[in-house]
Amino acid sequence: DRSGLGVVYRAHSMMTFETNQVQGLEAIKEKIATLPFQELKHRIATLDAHPSGESGSIIVLITGQLLIDGGEHPQKYSQCFHLIPEGGTYYVLNDIFRLIYDA
Amino acid sequence: DRSGLGVVYRAHSMMTFETNQVQGLEAIKEKIATLPFQELKHRIATLDAHPSGESGSIIVLITGQLLIDGGEHPQKYSQCFHLIPEGGTYYVLNDIFRLIYDA
Repeated sequence: DRSGLGVVYRAHSMMTFETNQVQGLEAIKEKIATLPFQELKHRIATLDAHPSGESGSIIVLITGQLLIDGGEHPQKYSQCFHLIPEGGTYYVLNDIFRLIYDA
Repeated sequence: DRSGLGVVYRAHSMMTFETNQVQGLEAIKEKIATLPFQELKHRIATLDAHPSGESGSIIVLITGQLLIDGGEHPQKYSQCFHLIPEGGTYYVLNDIFRLIYDA
Protein backbone atom coordinates (compact mmCIF):
# COMPACT_ATOMS: atom_id res chain seq x y z
CA ASP A 1 0.00 0.00 0.00
CA ARG A 2 1.66 3.19 -1.18
CA SER A 3 -1.28 5.52 -0.59
CA GLY A 4 0.28 6.98 2.54
CA LEU A 5 3.65 7.76 1.01
CA GLY A 6 2.62 11.23 -0.10
CA VAL A 7 2.66 12.50 3.44
CA VAL A 8 6.44 12.83 3.42
CA TYR A 9 6.35 15.20 0.44
CA ARG A 10 5.33 18.86 0.44
CA ALA A 11 3.74 21.24 -2.04
CA HIS A 12 7.10 22.32 -3.46
CA SER A 13 8.66 18.82 -3.53
CA MET A 14 9.92 17.43 -6.82
CA MET A 15 10.21 13.78 -7.86
CA THR A 16 11.92 12.18 -10.83
CA PHE A 17 10.99 8.55 -11.45
CA GLU A 18 12.93 7.35 -14.46
CA THR A 19 12.18 9.90 -17.21
CA ASN A 20 9.12 11.39 -15.50
CA GLN A 21 9.60 14.55 -13.48
CA VAL A 22 6.71 15.89 -11.43
CA GLN A 23 6.41 18.69 -8.89
CA GLY A 24 3.88 19.24 -6.15
CA LEU A 25 2.20 17.03 -3.59
CA GLU A 26 -0.80 16.05 -5.68
CA ALA A 27 1.28 15.28 -8.78
CA ILE A 28 3.67 13.15 -6.71
CA LYS A 29 0.80 11.27 -5.03
CA GLU A 30 -0.73 10.64 -8.44
CA LYS A 31 2.60 9.43 -9.81
CA ILE A 32 3.17 7.06 -6.89
CA ALA A 33 -0.39 5.73 -7.11
CA THR A 34 -0.01 4.89 -10.79
CA LEU A 35 3.38 3.17 -10.73
CA PRO A 36 3.09 0.00 -12.78
CA PHE A 37 3.46 -2.55 -10.01
CA GLN A 38 1.48 -3.59 -6.97
CA GLU A 39 4.07 -4.87 -4.56
CA LEU A 40 7.57 -3.66 -4.18
CA LYS A 41 10.30 -4.83 -1.85
CA HIS A 42 13.49 -2.85 -1.45
CA ARG A 43 16.84 -4.41 -0.66
CA ILE A 44 19.12 -1.55 0.28
CA ALA A 45 22.77 -2.27 -0.57
CA THR A 46 24.26 1.09 0.41
CA LEU A 47 22.89 4.19 2.14
CA ASP A 48 25.09 7.23 2.58
CA ALA A 49 23.93 10.47 4.16
CA HIS A 50 25.56 13.89 4.36
CA PRO A 51 24.50 16.95 6.28
CA SER A 52 23.97 19.64 3.67
CA GLY A 53 24.08 23.25 4.69
CA GLU A 54 23.30 25.04 7.90
CA SER A 55 19.57 24.41 7.74
CA GLY A 56 19.91 20.83 8.94
CA SER A 57 18.98 19.32 5.59
CA ILE A 58 20.38 15.94 4.54
CA ILE A 59 21.47 14.46 1.21
CA VAL A 60 21.01 10.68 0.92
CA LEU A 61 22.21 8.33 -1.81
CA ILE A 62 20.77 4.82 -1.82
CA THR A 63 21.72 1.95 -4.09
CA GLY A 64 19.96 -1.36 -3.99
CA GLN A 65 17.61 -3.79 -5.63
CA LEU A 66 13.89 -3.86 -6.22
CA LEU A 67 11.84 -7.02 -6.15
CA ILE A 68 8.74 -6.26 -8.16
CA ASP A 69 5.46 -8.11 -7.62
CA GLY A 70 7.18 -11.18 -6.21
CA GLY A 71 9.39 -11.58 -9.28
CA GLU A 72 12.61 -13.48 -8.97
CA HIS A 73 14.80 -11.06 -10.88
CA PRO A 74 15.93 -8.16 -8.72
CA GLN A 75 16.29 -4.85 -10.54
CA LYS A 76 19.13 -2.62 -9.44
CA TYR A 77 18.35 1.01 -8.74
CA SER A 78 19.76 4.22 -7.36
CA GLN A 79 17.86 6.93 -5.51
CA CYS A 80 18.83 10.32 -4.18
CA PHE A 81 16.87 12.24 -1.54
CA HIS A 82 17.15 15.78 -0.26
CA LEU A 83 15.49 15.79 3.17
CA ILE A 84 14.47 18.97 5.00
CA PRO A 85 13.94 19.09 8.78
CA GLU A 86 10.47 20.08 9.94
CA GLY A 87 8.79 19.57 13.27
CA GLY A 88 11.16 16.94 14.60
CA THR A 89 11.13 14.90 11.41
CA TYR A 90 12.03 15.39 7.74
CA TYR A 91 10.13 15.86 4.53
CA VAL A 92 11.34 15.00 1.03
CA LEU A 93 12.17 18.09 -1.02
CA ASN A 94 13.79 16.09 -3.83
CA ASP A 95 13.49 12.43 -4.81
CA ILE A 96 15.35 11.21 -7.91
CA PHE A 97 15.01 7.53 -8.83
CA ARG A 98 16.74 5.62 -11.62
CA LEU A 99 16.88 1.96 -12.48
CA ILE A 100 20.37 0.64 -13.27
CA TYR A 101 20.34 -1.42 -16.42
CA ASP A 102 22.84 -4.04 -17.40
CA ALA A 103 25.06 -2.96 -20.24
CA ASP B 1 44.96 14.42 -14.45
CA ARG B 2 42.74 14.94 -11.45
CA SER B 3 44.92 17.47 -9.64
CA GLY B 4 42.66 20.36 -10.64
CA LEU B 5 39.41 18.77 -9.51
CA GLY B 6 39.64 20.19 -6.02
CA VAL B 7 38.81 23.67 -7.23
CA VAL B 8 35.11 22.85 -7.44
CA TYR B 9 34.98 21.94 -3.75
CA ARG B 10 35.00 24.29 -0.79
CA ALA B 11 36.23 24.16 2.81
CA HIS B 12 32.89 22.84 4.09
CA SER B 13 32.33 20.36 1.23
CA MET B 14 31.88 16.67 2.02
CA MET B 15 32.69 13.69 -0.17
CA THR B 16 31.82 10.02 0.21
CA PHE B 17 33.73 7.68 -2.10
CA GLU B 18 32.56 4.16 -1.41
CA THR B 19 32.95 3.70 2.36
CA ASN B 20 35.28 6.67 2.86
CA GLN B 21 33.76 9.95 3.98
CA VAL B 22 35.92 13.05 4.11
CA GLN B 23 35.18 16.71 4.72
CA GLY B 24 37.14 19.79 3.78
CA LEU B 25 38.96 20.93 0.69
CA GLU B 26 42.37 19.51 1.62
CA ALA B 27 40.96 16.13 2.69
CA ILE B 28 38.96 15.90 -0.55
CA LYS B 29 41.97 16.83 -2.69
CA GLU B 30 44.02 14.21 -0.86
CA LYS B 31 41.32 11.61 -1.37
CA ILE B 32 41.01 12.35 -5.10
CA ALA B 33 44.79 12.32 -5.53
CA THR B 34 45.10 8.88 -3.94
CA LEU B 35 42.27 7.08 -5.75
CA PRO B 36 43.64 3.71 -6.88
CA PHE B 37 43.62 4.30 -10.63
CA GLN B 38 45.38 6.57 -13.06
CA GLU B 39 42.94 7.01 -15.90
CA LEU B 40 39.23 7.11 -15.64
CA LYS B 41 36.62 7.52 -18.34
CA HIS B 42 32.99 8.17 -17.46
CA ARG B 43 30.09 7.01 -19.58
CA ILE B 44 27.06 8.81 -18.23
CA ALA B 45 23.86 6.81 -18.73
CA THR B 46 21.43 9.13 -16.91
CA LEU B 47 21.73 12.61 -15.42
CA ASP B 48 18.78 14.14 -13.61
CA ALA B 49 18.87 17.54 -11.95
CA HIS B 50 16.41 19.25 -9.64
CA PRO B 51 16.38 22.79 -8.32
CA SER B 52 16.54 22.46 -4.56
CA GLY B 53 15.36 25.31 -2.41
CA GLU B 54 15.24 29.04 -2.89
CA SER B 55 19.00 29.51 -2.83
CA GLY B 56 19.46 28.28 -6.39
CA SER B 57 21.16 25.05 -5.36
CA ILE B 58 20.82 21.93 -7.49
CA ILE B 59 20.59 18.20 -6.71
CA VAL B 60 22.02 15.91 -9.40
CA LEU B 61 21.82 12.13 -9.68
CA ILE B 62 24.10 10.47 -12.20
CA THR B 63 24.22 6.80 -13.15
CA GLY B 64 26.74 5.41 -15.55
CA GLN B 65 29.81 3.34 -16.12
CA LEU B 66 33.48 3.79 -15.33
CA LEU B 67 36.25 2.55 -17.55
CA ILE B 68 39.28 2.22 -15.30
CA ASP B 69 42.82 2.39 -16.66
CA GLY B 70 41.78 1.28 -20.12
CA GLY B 71 40.16 -1.91 -18.81
CA GLU B 72 37.51 -3.59 -20.90
CA HIS B 73 35.03 -4.21 -18.13
CA PRO B 74 32.94 -1.16 -17.36
CA GLN B 75 31.96 -0.75 -13.71
CA LYS B 76 28.52 0.67 -13.03
CA TYR B 77 28.26 3.51 -10.56
CA SER B 78 25.92 6.09 -9.10
CA GLN B 79 26.82 9.58 -7.92
CA CYS B 80 24.85 12.32 -6.24
CA PHE B 81 25.91 15.98 -6.14
CA HIS B 82 24.56 18.95 -4.22
CA LEU B 83 25.71 22.02 -6.14
CA ILE B 84 25.64 25.55 -4.70
CA PRO B 85 25.64 28.67 -6.87
CA GLU B 86 28.57 31.03 -6.38
CA GLY B 87 29.90 33.75 -8.62
CA GLY B 88 28.14 32.66 -11.79
CA THR B 89 29.09 28.99 -11.39
CA TYR B 90 28.56 26.23 -8.85
CA TYR B 91 30.67 24.49 -6.25
CA VAL B 92 30.16 20.98 -4.90
CA LEU B 93 28.82 20.97 -1.35
CA ASN B 94 28.15 17.21 -1.37
CA ASP B 95 29.50 14.41 -3.54
CA ILE B 96 28.42 10.84 -2.81
CA PHE B 97 29.79 8.09 -5.04
CA ARG B 98 28.98 4.38 -4.99
CA LEU B 99 29.89 1.55 -7.32
CA ILE B 100 26.98 -0.71 -8.28
CA TYR B 101 27.94 -4.34 -7.91
CA ASP B 102 26.33 -7.27 -9.64
CA ALA B 103 24.30 -9.43 -7.31
